[in-house]
Amino acid sequence: MPDTIGVAVLGTGVIGGEVARRIATGTATEPGSGVALELVGVLDRGPEQVAQAGLDPALLASDGFALIERPEVQIVVEAMGGEQPAADLMCRALAQGKHVVTANKEAVSKQLPAILAAARDGDTAFLCEASVGGGIPLLVSLRQVLASNRVERVRGIINGTTNYILWQMESAGTSYADALAQAQQLGYAEADPTADVEGFDASYKLAILASLMSGRHVHPEEVDRTGISGVSAEQIAEARAQGGAIRLIAEVRRADNGLVLTVAPTFVGGDDLFSKVIANYNAVEIVGDKLGPVWLHGQGAGPNPTASAILSDVVEAARTGSAATPKLVP
Amino acid sequence: MPDTIGVAVLGTGVIGGEVARRIATGTATEPGSGVALELVGVLDRGPEQVAQAGLDPALLASDGFALIERPEVQIVVEAMGGEQPAADLMCRALAQGKHVVTANKEAVSKQLPAILAAARDGDTAFLCEASVGGGIPLLVSLRQVLASNRVERVRGIINGTTNYILWQMESAGTSYADALAQAQQLGYAEADPTADVEGFDASYKLAILASLMSGRHVHPEEVDRTGISGVSAEQIAEARAQGGAIRLIAEVRRADNGLVLTVAPTFVGGDDLFSKVIANYNAVEIVGDKLGPVWLHGQGAGPNPTASAILSDVVEAARTGSAATPKLVP
Repeated sequence: MPDTIGVAVLGTGVIGGEVARRIATGTATEPGSGVALELVGVLDRGPEQVAQAGLDPALLASDGFALIERPEVQIVVEAMGGEQPAADLMCRALAQGKHVVTANKEAVSKQLPAILAAARDGDTAFLCEASVGGGIPLLVSLRQVLASNRVERVRGIINGTTNYILWQMESAGTSYADALAQAQQLGYAEADPTADVEGFDASYKLAILASLMSGRHVHPEEVDRTGISGVSAEQIAEARAQGGAIRLIAEVRRADNGLVLTVAPTFVGGDDLFSKVIANYNAVEIVGDKLGPVWLHGQGAGPNPTASAILSDVVEAARTGSAATPKLVP
Repeated sequence: MPDTIGVAVLGTGVIGGEVARRIATGTATEPGSGVALELVGVLDRGPEQVAQAGLDPALLASDGFALIERPEVQIVVEAMGGEQPAADLMCRALAQGKHVVTANKEAVSKQLPAILAAARDGDTAFLCEASVGGGIPLLVSLRQVLASNRVERVRGIINGTTNYILWQMESAGTSYADALAQAQQLGYAEADPTADVEGFDASYKLAILASLMSGRHVHPEEVDRTGISGVSAEQIAEARAQGGAIRLIAEVRRADNGLVLTVAPTFVGGDDLFSKVIANYNAVEIVGDKLGPVWLHGQGAGPNPTASAILSDVVEAARTGSAATPKLVP
């Protein structure tokens, strides 16, 4: 019989709700994983949100800090989004000996040193695979490459919304405004699309990749960021006429005087695999000095892939404990 | 200061020699990994082989079983190839409390249950990332996906030699015989190319993937195997005329009555990313029920990528211990 691990889920929106439902219905982990999960409690604004997520409102805790302190909570899944109070809750949980798993790219990219310090204090696992590239096993791959390679460059399409818009402009010949409206209709873009289309989301994710790659905290404000709102139908058509495409490329590479960090609409030639990334897919290339380029491609967002990545991290935290936590070089 | 871990390397050929040299010269791991390695001893036929690998012949042990028993050996890297005595040495080491890392697809695919039983007895780490897909972080990705997904299918190009031959026939219009001769000249194919061109190598690797995916031991003889020696220049030209390509595709998928396991030359359409896999690259698609398809691409062979994968596994074994070992479902 596998061990049963108590989990608290903070935030029962699209992602957190999916995670909590899978735990509550016993479909969170595979039998071969050796780990079974039990939902101890959830945090949200009120019982309506919890009921809307298809969960028993009795699971609702009134106070997040009290919830994570409950002795039966061994792992905390943070799916609230935003920098605070998410980061404070994660730090408190980690320091108190609870493993933490999150998909929150803003809190991780801005508060990584405090989070890792709390994990060190509590000897706990902190994992954030779902914060970059959704379901793509990107951070486990980067960890594996980093152990024996100097990573020279990480480059990719890490925002599905903007890729969908650019691809829609390219394949259907629509304007930016029409493609954005369609992305909003499909639920890929928010009513206020700024975080996606102006590259903030991609810069958070790039800052996380850059921090793990370099071993120092890279703040998202260090990223030279250009969004896609200025990309015209003519530029897209011109790229297509040349056999290539325009994609929002996020890149961190080493230079003589440190890291170069950019998020910008970029022409990619027809031979470049990035030009084949369609719809709202993500793709990332990791270049190690010994290994050369490794390329990963998959669903970068959506409740099922993102919840999968979170639950895989939960299993890894249960199996491996604090050894799974990434380190920054002191 | 990182811990220094004693390593024995069994076999100092192309791959083992690279691993041993990197350990001996202090270039095996990255500073951020927190792990430093020391080369305790190596095994090979005689001092000439060891000297040829650029290593101090004084490192040579006369007996493999005696070498792995030395108390200063904490991790054993097996790079001898072949089923025996490699499998026996690995089992002995694991049962005695030494972690084992290997690139040996034949021994792993045929002896996986014995190897995992020994790892259980010794509470040790067994890792074999380099046995499939060379430097591509494929098994760590599969492990991550498997924790929270039922994996429906794994499909890929997992033999670089045959991909090089097929791609050469396609891009240069050469015959199979000429492309094979060129692959031999470049060192991609052996003097006796049977293991590659008849699909044995791919069937070993597929059996490992299938075992990890299904949780039961899949023997390579269960694979329905067709090599590429019967592929004609005309078939390649015809595939190209249709906008696609022929690739040696290895696939395991679930069916009502168990697993379907095939290695065979297969037509892939121009929209299929597998048709874009050139030269001796490898690529693999993992399809999870929640996650959808994840696609990985990179260098599937060669001393640098393969040694990287081995050394990353060595670091992971040192950091994580027995929690890193895959499990078959009892």
